[in-house]
Amino acid sequence: MTRPVDIPTLVEQARRGAPRAVARLISMVEDAHPALREVMAALAPYSGHAHIIGITGSPGVGKSTSTNALVTALRRRDLRVGVLAVDPSSPFSGGALLGDRIRMTDHVLDPRVYIRSMASRGHLGGLSWTTPQALRVLDAAGCDVVLVETVGVGQSEVEIVGLADTTVVLLAPGMGDGIQAAKAGILEIGDVFVVNKADRDGADNTVRDIRHMISLGDRTEPGLWRPPVVKTVASRDEGVDEVVEALDKHLTWMKDKGELRARRLRRAADEIEAIVIKSLRERMGDLRGEHGVDTLAAAVVDGEQDSYSAADQILADLT
Amino acid sequence: MTRPVDIPTLVEQARRGAPRAVARLISMVEDAHPALREVMAALAPYSGHAHIIGITGSPGVGKSTSTNALVTALRRRDLRVGVLAVDPSSPFSGGALLGDRIRMTDHVLDPRVYIRSMASRGHLGGLSWTTPQALRVLDAAGCDVVLVETVGVGQSEVEIVGLADTTVVLLAPGMGDGIQAAKAGILEIGDVFVVNKADRDGADNTVRDIRHMISLGDRTEPGLWRPPVVKTVASRDEGVDEVVEALDKHLTWMKDKGELRARRLRRAADEIEAIVIKSLRERMGDLRGEHGVDTLAAAVVDGEQDSYSAADQILADLT
Repeated sequence: MTRPVDIPTLVEQARRGAPRAVARLISMVEDAHPALREVMAALAPYSGHAHIIGITGSPGVGKSTSTNALVTALRRRDLRVGVLAVDPSSPFSGGALLGDRIRMTDHVLDPRVYIRSMASRGHLGGLSWTTPQALRVLDAAGCDVVLVETVGVGQSEVEIVGLADTTVVLLAPGMGDGIQAAKAGILEIGDVFVVNKADRDGADNTVRDIRHMISLGDRTEPGLWRPPVVKTVASRDEGVDEVVEALDKHLTWMKDKGELRARRLRRAADEIEAIVIKSLRERMGDLRGEHGVDTLAAAVVDGEQDSYSAADQILADLT
Repeated sequence: MTRPVDIPTLVEQARRGAPRAVARLISMVEDAHPALREVMAALAPYSGHAHIIGITGSPGVGKSTSTNALVTALRRRDLRVGVLAVDPSSPFSGGALLGDRIRMTDHVLDPRVYIRSMASRGHLGGLSWTTPQALRVLDAAGCDVVLVETVGVGQSEVEIVGLADTTVVLLAPGMGDGIQAAKAGILEIGDVFVVNKADRDGADNTVRDIRHMISLGDRTEPGLWRPPVVKTVASRDEGVDEVVEALDKHLTWMKDKGELRARRLRRAADEIEAIVIKSLRERMGDLRGEHGVDTLAAAVVDGEQDSYSAADQILADLT
């Protein structure tokens, strides 16, 4: 049974920064709570303040240590910080790992830092509609910066781009040579590159590789943002302030060039489309019974019909 | 300019097994050729013969060597074999790597083996609608077995399940211990597990780990398929006939239990839905101009409207 929720009060509490209200709203996003529409309508006027920063990188580069160190550096500037760790890698188990929820122990007692792990429920497109809503909650709750970290590998590295104003790509010596980075498609997505574990052998080579690969791309044209490459040792808080400066510079550049608004427009359009698709999928789900998708699927399996003509029938019913 | 195509002739040639006609039809799938509907309608009556086998595993387990060895073993039984290597890992570059197209050199001169690489064009859901159509081409062309191999990592390992009748999960000693496999979600998706490079240290441990993890799941209930774990050294053709036997047994089991039809119905339903969604996305794309998604996105960015109410307006226009 769903407990009735007083949305206006909850939203007001979240806006004043009450951690439990923020947590409750994000849970409602995760659970696709029936009152989510009402929540999002109430939050709408208070969105757009936070600088949304995506953090991505292969396992082993020190993602959570770096996120932790970034939170520390942002708190030194007295900024209110949200952290959302998204795990799209676990399609069957669902639910975020307990370890994620408790690992950023440096900040759990700081009332001006919100930390939250979310499972994206393993569905393709899961990231695309739950995460923007969770971000909107943290934004409306008055966060100045929200860090979105994807746990896991693969597609998620690319998906995160659509979610963030600024994307930070983390590398480590020996893992992030230029060719690998190019193959993974991360050269195209990084606004700021960070070579972590820079006290290890090969850090300068990695920096050189990345700079070289960037110079080969079309990023060097005048007026375009040239992604900086920053060295850090996140575990010792070295270089982290330089990362924050690079993030600030990117935000200023985006504002100056109209790029911030352009990215947010693209993001909002993607989010709207994701909600539309989700809603249409639900209607199709309702059509899975007699005379619906299931019957048509049988005709396709039996070779009586092809999948396009079957799709046409569904479209006719939907629209 | 698109060259006009004589679809009935092309389909007839493909059905008689002409490699160039098969290749041309798969290219039409890749290019989303306007005549694709006609092709699929013409192929519909000839589908359902091939045993579709998905092959997945992390980089380094010997996926292409194993696929190559499986083709050899299937040809020893005089079966007609199709191979589709799908690369969903490269969202920005598009296009399959030349290396994939030429690496299975043992079989390129065999007229009863079709080998094809496909890029899934990097879009989420790309795999979900192009690959089933390419499979249908190979099926209608008279392949007894089609091997679908995903190049790349992550989500693709899970997506392949939806495409195949039988899913083979490849592991290698030292990479595929039980915990890793469980984390990656591959225990749930494998119908047959193959521990390749079984001449290496630790192969028996890997087999034991996987068997143990399987025994902990719900696969041991009576009437369910208990996935076998087969050891191979694909590069020396050791154990590969045992894999083919396991695949045969799984096919027989699926037929006996009605599972083959159940899986194909699910697959057809998913494919129909993917085509519906694609078509609706295109209509939404047409709505991106004035009064469409873009205008609504601006209202969301400006906090005048929330994404749900924006989605409602699009839905009203679409349906």
